[in-house]
Amino acid sequence: MYTDEKLSEDGFEEGTPSSPLTLILFGATGDLAQRKLYSALYSLYLDGRLPSAFAVTGVARKALHRAEFQTLVQTSLERFSRHSVDTSESLTAFLEHFYYVSVDVKKAADFEHLRQFVVDLEANLSSPGNRMFYLAMAPEYFGPIALNLKSCGLTGTEGWKRLVIEKPFGTNLESAERLNSELRQGFQEEEIYRIDHYLGKEMVQNIEVLRFANSIFEPVWNNRSIANIQITSSETVGVEERSGYYDQAGAVRDMVQNHMLQMVMMIAMEPPSRLKTEAIRDEKVKVLRSLRRYQTSEIGDHVVLGQYEAGQVAGQEVPAYRDEPGVHPKSRTETFVAARLFIDNFRWAGVPFYIRTGKRLGVKATEIVIQFKDMPKHLYFNQDGNLLPNLLVIRVYPEEGIYIRLNAKRPGTDGTVVPVAMEFSQEPDDSPEAYERLFYDAIRGDSTFFTRWDEVALAWKFVDPIIDASQNGTDPNLFPYPSGSFGPEAATQLVAEDHFRWWPIYGQTAAPADTAGSASFWRTQGRVQG
Amino acid sequence: MYTDEKLSEDGFEEGTPSSPLTLILFGATGDLAQRKLYSALYSLYLDGRLPSAFAVTGVARKALHRAEFQTLVQTSLERFSRHSVDTSESLTAFLEHFYYVSVDVKKAADFEHLRQFVVDLEANLSSPGNRMFYLAMAPEYFGPIALNLKSCGLTGTEGWKRLVIEKPFGTNLESAERLNSELRQGFQEEEIYRIDHYLGKEMVQNIEVLRFANSIFEPVWNNRSIANIQITSSETVGVEERSGYYDQAGAVRDMVQNHMLQMVMMIAMEPPSRLKTEAIRDEKVKVLRSLRRYQTSEIGDHVVLGQYEAGQVAGQEVPAYRDEPGVHPKSRTETFVAARLFIDNFRWAGVPFYIRTGKRLGVKATEIVIQFKDMPKHLYFNQDGNLLPNLLVIRVYPEEGIYIRLNAKRPGTDGTVVPVAMEFSQEPDDSPEAYERLFYDAIRGDSTFFTRWDEVALAWKFVDPIIDASQNGTDPNLFPYPSGSFGPEAATQLVAEDHFRWWPIYGQTAAPADTAGSASFWRTQGRVQG
Repeated sequence: MYTDEKLSEDGFEEGTPSSPLTLILFGATGDLAQRKLYSALYSLYLDGRLPSAFAVTGVARKALHRAEFQTLVQTSLERFSRHSVDTSESLTAFLEHFYYVSVDVKKAADFEHLRQFVVDLEANLSSPGNRMFYLAMAPEYFGPIALNLKSCGLTGTEGWKRLVIEKPFGTNLESAERLNSELRQGFQEEEIYRIDHYLGKEMVQNIEVLRFANSIFEPVWNNRSIANIQITSSETVGVEERSGYYDQAGAVRDMVQNHMLQMVMMIAMEPPSRLKTEAIRDEKVKVLRSLRRYQTSEIGDHVVLGQYEAGQVAGQEVPAYRDEPGVHPKSRTETFVAARLFIDNFRWAGVPFYIRTGKRLGVKATEIVIQFKDMPKHLYFNQDGNLLPNLLVIRVYPEEGIYIRLNAKRPGTDGTVVPVAMEFSQEPDDSPEAYERLFYDAIRGDSTFFTRWDEVALAWKFVDPIIDASQNGTDPNLFPYPSGSFGPEAATQLVAEDHFRWWPIYGQTAAPADTAGSASFWRTQGRVQG
Repeated sequence: MYTDEKLSEDGFEEGTPSSPLTLILFGATGDLAQRKLYSALYSLYLDGRLPSAFAVTGVARKALHRAEFQTLVQTSLERFSRHSVDTSESLTAFLEHFYYVSVDVKKAADFEHLRQFVVDLEANLSSPGNRMFYLAMAPEYFGPIALNLKSCGLTGTEGWKRLVIEKPFGTNLESAERLNSELRQGFQEEEIYRIDHYLGKEMVQNIEVLRFANSIFEPVWNNRSIANIQITSSETVGVEERSGYYDQAGAVRDMVQNHMLQMVMMIAMEPPSRLKTEAIRDEKVKVLRSLRRYQTSEIGDHVVLGQYEAGQVAGQEVPAYRDEPGVHPKSRTETFVAARLFIDNFRWAGVPFYIRTGKRLGVKATEIVIQFKDMPKHLYFNQDGNLLPNLLVIRVYPEEGIYIRLNAKRPGTDGTVVPVAMEFSQEPDDSPEAYERLFYDAIRGDSTFFTRWDEVALAWKFVDPIIDASQNGTDPNLFPYPSGSFGPEAATQLVAEDHFRWWPIYGQTAAPADTAGSASFWRTQGRVQG
């Protein structure tokens, strides 16, 4: 992914892929396609990162003429692209690559039609039959589509074939295994690209660069120097129009099983033998193998679930979760999770990894805070016992950057020690979106930042008991919390039990009282160099 | 110095000193007094850091009325104070503390007169006789003044007495020992405050805070993580009006014996048992004891001396050193030194400390660069073998701040790794000047940032053989270098022999060719928080 050597050894193309490509996009009229996928393709196109011979065959149930579909794509770009799209020649040329086939995913005949269409298209492109199937659809269709793709012969090609799917990958280990075996009837594991869009985020990808390209961090990246790690992904929105899905899923399935554990893996993994896809994924999986699984009786000690009540977010009155349209009025679905994880290996033994995620919280931000150990308490500069520990903060969203908090001498004669901020940040606007990076990787055949099956399975093994306990009404309790807060008090307690506290994350203006002034840490400016 | 505990245990006053104080300032009409000392006192006065009962008795040979002296002080403040002085009531009140006595330092009768004056003044102040003697004079007067102060009885007081002197402390070990024994006739070692104004600089004082208040640094502050350390103090000026002194002294005596070795000590010292004056100075002395002394035959391998030729500095044509007024036309005095030092202890074995200092160099800056070890060469991200090592840079002058260079992923899809800058810097204008800090410390009786006798002696033991070899015309050679350059090529070679290179320092715009773009590292902005 990063080294030339790796690119060639792994057998995928360096730089801009040149071999012709057909993208068969299921769910072409859907929300994800319109919001994210067309924009991502357009950005890659403008950056010259698509092969000159490529075709996108939009697939959906609706009957549409090609021109209508092209208009839909154009409208999507106008609304969602980070590039200007008005009247450009590029736009016209881009849309020429788009085709449309109406398919009812339950009808074998429609797939036969699709196959013929794709084969003809490939003949025109002089393509060897490189096919990327992107299923931007509800997961219940994944299995049937995979089967039909195989039955109709579309998976039989001289070129490569890849299947790109989005979470959720099942609703528990059992259903995930069932889904996986369906997919595997048409595709090999190495042909399946499971998107976790957090792995496409700039700063999540930067974690391995930070860790493995900076000798200053390696000696301190362990339980001798690190006191705890805090990973927060907070949202201000409520359940929105996804209540049908969400009220069945909840935050543990929606966020912890995938995104939160992926970030834990990136932070905690051992250095891989080489920076190669499988070497990296092997190390990530080892983290999940070392992740301590809780007995049902232990879950309440380490996991806090919450559900939002009415409250104020950004000055707006918002309703309680149970009053949201489509939510069961007595729903026990969690909209907030905080948990204490332990990775039982030599590197991390004794270092709690605190994760928390939720909806209707006070700010929208994803951040990883690495808190280093305190200096000896009765030595050096600790005038009022308030010498703050060093923090390394990786800001994933909305700010992208790295922040280090150090202690330094306040200028002047009195020798007071104060915390100072060092950071670099980059303009998020300049960064490609997660989908651009992941699309590009999938086209090149680089699956490093996609989720391998064993990661999926092990993640379910960790979260299944939590979900079970919750649904059985045993532990953990479901704590209500006001919208606009930072979750239930129990989440604060969870960390306080270990004599730690949650550090304020970006945009969290109301810092806890005992860190007077710490909000100002976040104000320094820096920017990426080079 | 920093902790309440320390302040009280060491028996000096906390916060603003309250006990009456008489400052007897020799050289009251001289350059140092006018440029630095009155301004420093005025700043301390405005900050409320002087006792309410204090008197400054200016002493010089010239006959002056008190009012004339007060005018001289006022004029000095108008020219050099960092505070506005026009028509302020504070100024008038401040000047009321100033007195003047004319003294010929060779005349015992004049000292008798001075004693009577001081005793009367102290009676008015109800002072127990706390006396600070500040010798802002040429060092040849230090001994005679100390003797006369003792003979006339001024050193006999119920209060405390302190002697403050400036470098040079001798011209070699032998003369330094002679001077010291003269001073010791009137003062105890702990009463002698030897100013090294580099120790008064904000960021030099910050070194111990950085090292001992940040747990992130302790694990990497040793030869397992650090490749080399580079300490540069470069000047753009030539010898100026100091040629009489400088042509006898040279850069080794003028800069290395004191300032450069002091910075080496601050960086290299072991953590002291407590942050107390003598514990810190004990650790600093240990560094000098571990500093490898070179045999005469080795000096040429580790030390490069240079002398400036004509050239351009900041667009101005400037003459060669030998053409400067007051310099011997065949002078062999070095105006530049670069040296490789080794500190032979467990922490630093094998880590070269490179120091360099000189006049008429391309930029004016003092910086300490800590270069961390390279990552394994054939692993991770090293696309073109150009993965740059991590640097921690302590900027002492003119910028004050800390800078860390890391490697991070360049935003985008190509995964290129680029160096990024993280820094905090503080407004040098807001910082008190070195003399303010040191004056304040001397008044409070805190000698942490003053040079103890054994430091002076050991530093001479290290530099004496270098100076001897140079004057004998054996090694090291004296290399000419053009004004406006960064010293002779031999200094570059010295570092290149170890497969290292000098990193560009602040303001050094023409970065060496192999670090294209690295000049831009220095551009990020940050600021101190809290």
